[in-house]
This record gives sequence, structure tokens and C-alpha cells, in this order.
Amino acid sequence: MAYDNRVAVLYGVKDLRVESRPTPEPGPGELLVEVRSVGVCGSDVHYYEHGRIGHYVVEQPLVLGHEASGVVVAAGPGADASRVGERVALEPGVPCGRCAQCRTGHYNLCPDVRFFATPPIDGAFARYVTINQEFAHRVPDSLDDDEAALIEPLSVGVWASWRAGLRGGERVLVTGAGPIGLVAAQVARAFGAAEVIVTDVNPRRLALAAELGATSVIDLTRESVPADVGATVLLECSGVPRALVDGIVALAPAGTAVAVGMGPSADAVVPLQLIQNREINLTGTFRYANTYPSAIAMAATGRVQLRPLVTGRFDLDHAEDALTAGSSDPSAIKTVVRPQE
Amino acid sequence: MAYDNRVAVLYGVKDLRVESRPTPEPGPGELLVEVRSVGVCGSDVHYYEHGRIGHYVVEQPLVLGHEASGVVVAAGPGADASRVGERVALEPGVPCGRCAQCRTGHYNLCPDVRFFATPPIDGAFARYVTINQEFAHRVPDSLDDDEAALIEPLSVGVWASWRAGLRGGERVLVTGAGPIGLVAAQVARAFGAAEVIVTDVNPRRLALAAELGATSVIDLTRESVPADVGATVLLECSGVPRALVDGIVALAPAGTAVAVGMGPSADAVVPLQLIQNREINLTGTFRYANTYPSAIAMAATGRVQLRPLVTGRFDLDHAEDALTAGSSDPSAIKTVVRPQE
Amino acid sequence: MAYDNRVAVLYGVKDLRVESRPTPEPGPGELLVEVRSVGVCGSDVHYYEHGRIGHYVVEQPLVLGHEASGVVVAAGPGADASRVGERVALEPGVPCGRCAQCRTGHYNLCPDVRFFATPPIDGAFARYVTINQEFAHRVPDSLDDDEAALIEPLSVGVWASWRAGLRGGERVLVTGAGPIGLVAAQVARAFGAAEVIVTDVNPRRLALAAELGATSVIDLTRESVPADVGATVLLECSGVPRALVDGIVALAPAGTAVAVGMGPSADAVVPLQLIQNREINLTGTFRYANTYPSAIAMAATGRVQLRPLVTGRFDLDHAEDALTAGSSDPSAIKTVVRPQE
Amino acid sequence: MAYDNRVAVLYGVKDLRVESRPTPEPGPGELLVEVRSVGVCGSDVHYYEHGRIGHYVVEQPLVLGHEASGVVVAAGPGADASRVGERVALEPGVPCGRCAQCRTGHYNLCPDVRFFATPPIDGAFARYVTINQEFAHRVPDSLDDDEAALIEPLSVGVWASWRAGLRGGERVLVTGAGPIGLVAAQVARAFGAAEVIVTDVNPRRLALAAELGATSVIDLTRESVPADVGATVLLECSGVPRALVDGIVALAPAGTAVAVGMGPSADAVVPLQLIQNREINLTGTFRYANTYPSAIAMAATGRVQLRPLVTGRFDLDHAEDALTAGSSDPSAIKTVVRPQE
Repeated sequence: MAYDNRVAVLYGVKDLRVESRPTPEPGPGELLVEVRSVGVCGSDVHYYEHGRIGHYVVEQPLVLGHEASGVVVAAGPGADASRVGERVALEPGVPCGRCAQCRTGHYNLCPDVRFFATPPIDGAFARYVTINQEFAHRVPDSLDDDEAALIEPLSVGVWASWRAGLRGGERVLVTGAGPIGLVAAQVARAFGAAEVIVTDVNPRRLALAAELGATSVIDLTRESVPADVGATVLLECSGVPRALVDGIVALAPAGTAVAVGMGPSADAVVPLQLIQNREINLTGTFRYANTYPSAIAMAATGRVQLRPLVTGRFDLDHAEDALTAGSSDPSAIKTVVRPQE
Repeated sequence: MAYDNRVAVLYGVKDLRVESRPTPEPGPGELLVEVRSVGVCGSDVHYYEHGRIGHYVVEQPLVLGHEASGVVVAAGPGADASRVGERVALEPGVPCGRCAQCRTGHYNLCPDVRFFATPPIDGAFARYVTINQEFAHRVPDSLDDDEAALIEPLSVGVWASWRAGLRGGERVLVTGAGPIGLVAAQVARAFGAAEVIVTDVNPRRLALAAELGATSVIDLTRESVPADVGATVLLECSGVPRALVDGIVALAPAGTAVAVGMGPSADAVVPLQLIQNREINLTGTFRYANTYPSAIAMAATGRVQLRPLVTGRFDLDHAEDALTAGSSDPSAIKTVVRPQE
Repeated sequence: MAYDNRVAVLYGVKDLRVESRPTPEPGPGELLVEVRSVGVCGSDVHYYEHGRIGHYVVEQPLVLGHEASGVVVAAGPGADASRVGERVALEPGVPCGRCAQCRTGHYNLCPDVRFFATPPIDGAFARYVTINQEFAHRVPDSLDDDEAALIEPLSVGVWASWRAGLRGGERVLVTGAGPIGLVAAQVARAFGAAEVIVTDVNPRRLALAAELGATSVIDLTRESVPADVGATVLLECSGVPRALVDGIVALAPAGTAVAVGMGPSADAVVPLQLIQNREINLTGTFRYANTYPSAIAMAATGRVQLRPLVTGRFDLDHAEDALTAGSSDPSAIKTVVRPQE
Repeated sequence: MAYDNRVAVLYGVKDLRVESRPTPEPGPGELLVEVRSVGVCGSDVHYYEHGRIGHYVVEQPLVLGHEASGVVVAAGPGADASRVGERVALEPGVPCGRCAQCRTGHYNLCPDVRFFATPPIDGAFARYVTINQEFAHRVPDSLDDDEAALIEPLSVGVWASWRAGLRGGERVLVTGAGPIGLVAAQVARAFGAAEVIVTDVNPRRLALAAELGATSVIDLTRESVPADVGATVLLECSGVPRALVDGIVALAPAGTAVAVGMGPSADAVVPLQLIQNREINLTGTFRYANTYPSAIAMAATGRVQLRPLVTGRFDLDHAEDALTAGSSDPSAIKTVVRPQE
């Protein structure tokens, strides 16, 4: 096979190189996908800047990128060849399908999952990738390539609401209006939240939250969350320790707090007596499971908007610019890499 | 007390009389409410036409009407007098608050509930009624009097989705596009259903369903529900035995069927082996519990539309016309009685 | 490979032949198991007597038996060879691990499951079988071979309680005291039911139920289930249509009915108005998922007794006698086939 | 009414006085109960030693005691007079029955609950108390007076398992073998836990835990909880901050931690990244709701043993000794006051 694949590989801290590799062969049950758009996630940036996330360490060159869409161009043995030509959103983690977590429906907790751009598995900053056919989800033409790529972060938002046990008519507090907060807030609204209150310290992001459906926004540089806001669900999307504490305090009795954002340290302080006295439920999310069909449907029917999140587009040769856009431009929300351009 | 209340009383089959009664005194914890609008429910019509519903028999004169809104005009002992002047939607069933059902949150199943227009409790076809203050729910000015009255049937729709355990992204089949089907479909959509398929035999009602947010409609006089529709939730709102069976057959494995509509007989045939082999969940709804705040919020923010359901308005002297409108006019959906006019 | 496997094969109605076949080779991820004990299930008997169960038709010779235990004797490629010598209970249905049902934890509903003794998949009335290693569950020595085989019907009982959402302190009605009713009743008790009431028409079976932990038994030939029994859970294990109806009538409001037993026809009559007015939940079970570890633990610690269920033991050459024991001996509960004897 | 009631009243820190008061009159719906036994709870001791618990401050003389049993001796207006003579366990918190928490079944979170021995509501260290008839639960003669009193702490254990969503077959870790840990462990076992591992630093308490049904015990002065214990439920009953952290670390993915014990401060450190990466659920308990009937049934049928917990009995004049027994005798578990002796 010719060396006709182009990939953006992280060799070390701030050492990203675009190079040619052989186009991969789809294995049994796999599809070969021509990648059209890949969103840049905070984790990609973190690997780029630090070479690691917690105990995941980049010890050998790693292709970044896990928020990807594309077009099926070939099918491996046993895979459905009739899907060639299909536009797909790629669910980046393929679990083993056999372990206790997989068998109980928690496949996102599978210890043997192979997840794009998580050492040592290569990601999707590439012209071509292979993926198990069940994890390449067909998208309708009402979604463009960038939107199809952002089904991945949208899945994080869907999962947050599902994990919260959100049912229609609840009052939801979303702390943090970055890419995840913005999708989490939209999903909460689309899933029937009567009110969605979004907090952040960045007025531009709050303005975008309001545009996308938040019923109220709170600029934490100027005011704080009212103690009597009476939220029944907290979706903590900022990773700021204080936001989790204040959010829990703002919950109604029997409310639920979901830690979606990743904080700076392994431990966190929580108001435990309040959790006990109000019987608050606290949990966290790790990726998502079974979200893609619903996420695609919500985006395809316009109930969630992904296009306003895209603030920059780069070709593969400028993948590094995509990774650094966030730190250089405070108004950046989400950049995408377009490997075919 | 002067005989200054006017009420529409059912004395027997098709014997409705408007008469004067003393204005009731609000008891401890109660409010006196000037009634502004009362929706006519199928159960009111059934009492009017048959004098009974199952084992509920009209044995003494009964004031009909239980879908009511109004304005607080007085407070009884211990009730909050500052609420005088407040516009309210009336939750028509006041439970005992002490029994096993009440204590477990199933207050709609309280055996000692006092429910408007259910023998021997009088209803709200009246200029004035009293009600426990916790069951008079404040409505914002964005809802007019008729909409505030229809928070009651909307509650039935909210309860249907809650009982179905609907979570965002599901595919919902609603059988029957009468008043309940129309609110159930809207609620399912507002609570995040990715698709809402509505069936009926009446093309006008189906057209209204489509206007109000159904993603597809099926006219059962011309086609049937595709066996592979893959709904995960069935909200059966027609009471037609065949609809329940066909709806269950159309459910995906592990799907949930909720019998909302009341059928013609106490028993029904269901596809039990299918229920077993696909592990379908079947349940039914009886009124609702804790729905009013959410229902009000959904209507007040426009995510559910109630005004299009109102197809006739009558004053109290013409309450009988309101009760017969449905049988005389096939395009009627919901009539309301306005006791102050 | 020599023709050294012995199997009992159903060629047609009441045509069971014991013959030699090659010992199977364990495939990738599979183990070869020397079968020690296989319980006879009602479904085996039904295939033997009728050649079919619903749309499952025995069109080619079929090895019966799916309640099996044994010892690992070899490991296929990629399987854990250190397990050779391990005593195991075999979970007879191996799902695909990839479909929507598998991914959501409902692997028992996998359309591509390969289940022992379900056409066209051969079963375990054999000296040797192969099985995916994840579905061969280690059993401790406190369980003998017959008990290890009966982990399969015990799983049906565990699943019934799980599907009922049984929580400690509930009152459970079990209708039918055959093998499934007897395990379902024991599991309900072991899982914390405050009361377990068992009904049947067979006094010997009721006596056994009482011995195994039922808190009360009702002989339906002499009395009926009191309408005020106030059960919160019904586990219908008889398949008798009347039992399902009477059981639902005996449920408290918001109770749950689980149809475990298979009835004589595809449809059934249920008291739908009662289901609605009391908001009863009705569902059914299809096999089980993720039950084996818990079932093994319950049996191994003596909280559920399986040995009293075994009323006959036969070698492979007398498998036909094992299949007919139930109809010839009214006191028979469960017979087992011992292929190594 | 004569001053014929005797009560033990806390006037301030370590200032307990036994005095005579008028026997209370049962109000509407209330019963007058002759108190037979009252358990001493850690909260009684805390009020005695510190005059407050958090923001609950003893500002006026307070009768202590909330774990009580007795015999009905009179019925107030509207209460069921036929219950005179009935032996009862008293559920010490009577909620309002009308607020949002009560209506949703969370009556333990009612802000207007009147709870024995919680300022300013007097408790049950008294010869006579009155209580709403729905909160005086009949007990069978198989329970003696002390056991009937200890239905209250048993309720805490039942609630812990319910809040954990415990289903049969799980592996439960109970940290702390004081009175609450000992009932929580017994309940978990009785509700079907396959394994119950109990930790403490007191070997006598661990020995008692083992006697009462723990499947294994860990003396934390000598060993620690194995990281691979694989518990799916943690019931933290010690209030020791380290126990909560270590317990969460020992949970399997998707496990649930319930903080039952009260810690020394309002806040606590938790391993948040682990909670996220394993999608652990953390919650706490505040008293209990709807537990009494189940708790009584479990104790009455011997599946939970309460008598071994009672390590001291005192008459009312020696109530102070009952309060100080725990600090003076390290082997004390639970003392009771017998007001009629």
C-alpha cells in the first residue's frame, strides 16, 4: 500500500508533525472512512501542551483527534459493503463487547475500550481511519461535515442529561459555557428542562448560551448563583472546584449534581452535610454510551445547534494552529481540522 | 350568605340545570376562587350522557367540571391572604396527605382524594369554588384564562411522559389525536422525543397534530402503523382496544406502553408473548401527581400550545351546549365554559 | 478428531436418539467443557413432544438441553488456558455483543444470540460442548454438579425479581410452584421480601414451597387469593391465564406484575382498567442477563436451595426417560441428565 | 389534668432533669401513647454534651429521645379509638403532608416536619407522648418493647439500602460497626446482598457484626480494605472522613456510595476524578421515609436481630446514665430508657 495517508502526530510536548503513513486496511467488521472534519477537544490541547492527561502518557508518537466525521470508502471482511458512500459520525471508543461493564450496558466504562487519540491508540487527525462498523453512525444530509464531527461533544451533553435522570419540566443549572457547557445546556433545554440557567465568567460565551436557548445567564464576575434558585439538576461543565460546591448548594432537596467538567486535581471538596441533609445525588460522567443515534436526531432536526460553536477551520497542515487557537483567541469556542482540504 | 353563586348541576341523564347556591366559605388552608374558565372533559360528557362512569354513579345532583382556572378572591383561616388577586390553575384533586399512597408520592392514587366533579364531590362549573391553597397554582400572565384551565389536561400529558420514563432522544408513538393525544404528543416532543408519530382516523385532528409538532402522522383509515417503526414509547390515548395491541406490536424491545385513554370495557386483550419476548413494560395512568408546576412552565414558555385546542367558548347558562358540542360538531376538540360571562 | 462425543438428538416428535459425534473444537475465545449435569426444562419437553415452540421449529436434528454445568478441559485460541480444570456453570445464550440490545445491557434480547437447544443451535445433552469463555462461570466447590446446572433456572428467578424492581421489605405473590415458581419464591425471599405467598393446585409442590421459605401458601383447589392480600409484586410463574388476572387484581396500587411463565397462547386478557386506575406495571421476562454471578453467590451461600428440586437423575442413554419423567410422575419437579455416567 | 407525666428534660449542656408535666392531650388524629422503651441515639448524647447539633440549638428545655415504642392508651378527636391497647413503634417525625417534598414522597425532607427531640419539639423520654396516628405503627407480639423502639435505627438501615438502590446479589461494604452500621449490615444481608464486608477499629463490634451476618469483617487497625474488593454498594456509617474516601475507592465502576454517618464537619474531600471516571453515584441519607412497615416485618420475622444491640437498660430517673453509658463503657452499643419502670 502506498504511503498516501496524511496524519498529524504528536511526538512530544508542543511537537506536532504532519507526516505520511500507509492508509490503514479495515479489519473484520470494520469500515475505512475518509475523514472530513475533526473537532479539537480540550484533551487534544492538553496532550499537546503537557504530553499527558493524568495517567495517560504519550510515550510514543500519537495521532490526535477524536471528534470526527467522514465518508465510508471501503468495508473490511464481514462489514456491510453497501455502506460505501455513506456519510458518518464516528463514535471514537470501541469497547470489547464482552466484559462485565459491556454486558451491563456501561460500555463507556469498558477497561479494554480502544478510544481514538488516547495512548496508545491513534486518533483521527488523518485523511483515513478505520473503525468498527457499529461505531460509524450514518448522518443525514441536513448535517454538514463539521456538525457531524461535533456529534461527539454533543454526545457528552446528551449523556450528562441522561446521567442526571433529567425529566421534562425540571430546572437545570449549567456551570460553565465552554463547548461542553453550551451543548449540555442546549440538550437540557431540548430534553424538556423548563429553565436552563447558565453561569460563566466570559460574557461572550454567556451571550452565546442565551442565543442557543438558556433561559437565563449569570456572569459570575458580577453576581453569584442565588441560593434559592431551586435547580433540581446541576450539570457542572467548568471543572472549577468552586462551581461544583456552589452548584450543589443551589440544588433543591433530592436534586442531582453531575460533574462533567474535569477539574485540576484528583480530589475535590464537597458540602457533604448538605448532600446528606438534602439527599442530593452526586455523580460524574465518563464519555457516553448509546448516545449517537439520539444526538444525531436532535442535531438533524435543529433542536440543538452545533454550527455556532465552530469558530475556526484549519487544514491538516495547520492542525497545530487549530490546537493553539483557544489560547490565542479568547472568543474561540471550537476549532475543526479538515483533513481533505 | 346570599345565594350569589351560580352553578351548572347535573340532576340526571341529560338533565343539567343552572341554579343559584350560596357562595362557599373557604375552610382552613383553603382559598376562595372566582372561576374564569373550565374545560369540558370527556368524563363530564360521559356523566351528562350516562349518569355514571364505571362505579362512580351520580346519585345526587352533581356540579360538573374539573379543568378550571380563576382568580383568588379570599383566603380561609390559616391560608395565605397575600394570594388574593393571584391568577391560578386549579389542580382538581386534593388528597388526604396521610395515607400510604400519599406518603410514597403517589397521591393520585389516594383512596380518600376529593376530586372535582367526581361523585359526590361538586366540580367547577360555578362562579366560585374553594380549594386547598396548595392545589391552586399560580400562573403567569403569559397564559390566558383558557390556557390556565387547560393545564389540567396538559397535566395528563405530562404524566403520560413521566410514567413512560421518557428520556430525550426516544421515538414516541401516540395513538389517538383527541385533546389528550394532542397534549401528550406535544409534551413528548417538548420533553425531547426525537420523533413523535401520531395516529388517528380523523384527518383534521391529524393535521392539527402535525401543526403542533408531531414529526409524522398516520391516518389509520388509509394505512397502518409500520411494524418496524421502532418506537420505544407508546402513549395510547384513544381508548380503542385495537390501538393498544397494534401499538405494543410496534414497540422496540424493552419499550414502554402507557395506556392513557380509557377503553370501553374493564378488560383488554394484549399480546402477552410479545410483552414477554421483548420485555415490554405496560402501565396506565390515573390522573397525575406533581405535574402542575412543570405543565405551567411548559405552556408559559410556549413549548406546548393549548390555545389551538379550544374550539368553543360558552357562558354558564350555555354549559349544556358546551357538553354537547363534541357530538354535534366533528371538528370540535375542546370547549370551555366561562362562568363570569 | 475421533467420534468420541455422545449426544442426545431430537430428530422429530418423540424421536430422541443418542449418537456419536466428533468432539467440537473450541473456537477463538471459547472453552471446551466436559458436561457433568444438565437439567431438563419445560422447553426441552415441549420440543420433544411437539417439535416446536411457537415459531422456533425443529427442522433439522437438534441436541436438546440448556441447563448445564461441567468442567473446562481445553481452551481455544485467545481463551484463558489457565481455566482448564475449573468447574463451571454454563450460561447458555451467547449474544453478539455489538447490536443495540447488547450495547444497552439487554443482551438477553439480542436478535443474534446463539442459545443452546434453540433451533438451529445444538444444546448440552452431550459429553462435550464449547462455549464462549465469558459465559462459562466458575462455581465454588460448595455447589455440586446438579446445583451448578440449576444456576440456569435460578437465573430465571433472579431475573424475575430484578425485573420486578423488588426492593427489600415488599410483599410478593408467586403464582405457580413448579421449578420456576420454586426458585422465584426463594429468590424473592432471599432478596428481602417480607412476605412470599405461593399459590398452586398441587399440594406437594406447595409443601415444598413452604419448606423452601414461602411465608404462606394457597391451594387454589380449596381457596383463592384474598383480594386484600396487598402484594406489591406478582411473579406469575404458572403460565395459567387466570393466574395472571387474579394476581394483578391482588396487587396493591403501583404494584408490579411480571409474567414469567409462558401461557398457552400469544394473547392474554388483562384487567386493563385496574392497571390504569391503580397504575400497575406489567412486564414479562425473556431469559435473563447478568444474573449468573449473583445466582451462583446466592446458591453457594445457601440462601437459595437447589438440591431439593432434583427429583430424578439419568445418564445420557436414558435422556428420553428424563424428558418424560414429568408427565409420568406427578411428584417430579426437575430431572437432570448426567452425560458422564 | 394532673401533673402525672414524668419526663427527662435537657436544660443545658450536661444538665438533664427529670420532672413532672401534665400528660398531653391527643389532638385531632392523634393517639396518646404510654412509652415503654426509648433508645438512646448519638444525637441525644450530642445534645446532652454540646447543647446543639449544627444549627439545631437547644434554646429552651428539651425532652430528649426519639427511638420509642409504647402502647396506645387514648385516641384524640377523629383518631381510631379501636387502637387503644395496641402496641406500637413510633415514627418520630411527622411531616406536614402538603409541601412539595411531602407530595413527591420525600417526606423526610419536609421543611415543616415535627421531629421528636429536635429543637423546639419535645421527645419521648417521657411516660406519655402524643403522636399522629399514622406514625404509630402496630408491632406484633414477636417483638418486645426494646426491639419495637429500635425499629427507628433499623429504619435508618432500611433507608440506607433503599437509597443505595440495593438489589439482590450485590457486594456491599459497610464502614463502621456502631449501632447504625450493625443494622445497615444486617439489612443489606437481609435484602439479598451476596456479600457484606464490615470495617471498624473495634474488634468487639466487628465480632458482633460477624455474628449478625457480615460475610467478612476488616479490622482497620490491622489491615485496610483491599482495593479490588469490588463492592457495588458502600454504606458509610462511621462518619470518619477517611472511611468515605477509602470506601469510594473500593467501589466497582457504576457503584453507589451512601453517606449515612455524620462527619465532623460540613465539608468533605472526595475522590472526584474517580467518581467521574467510574461513574460512581454518591448520596447521603437524612432520616428515612416509608420504612416502618418493612422494618417491622424484617425484625418480626427474625431476619434482622435487634436484641443483641441492647447493652443497657435504665429507668427514667437514670436517663442520664443511659446518655453517658457510651462514653464510660467501650463495649456499649445501645442503651434504652424504660419510662414505666
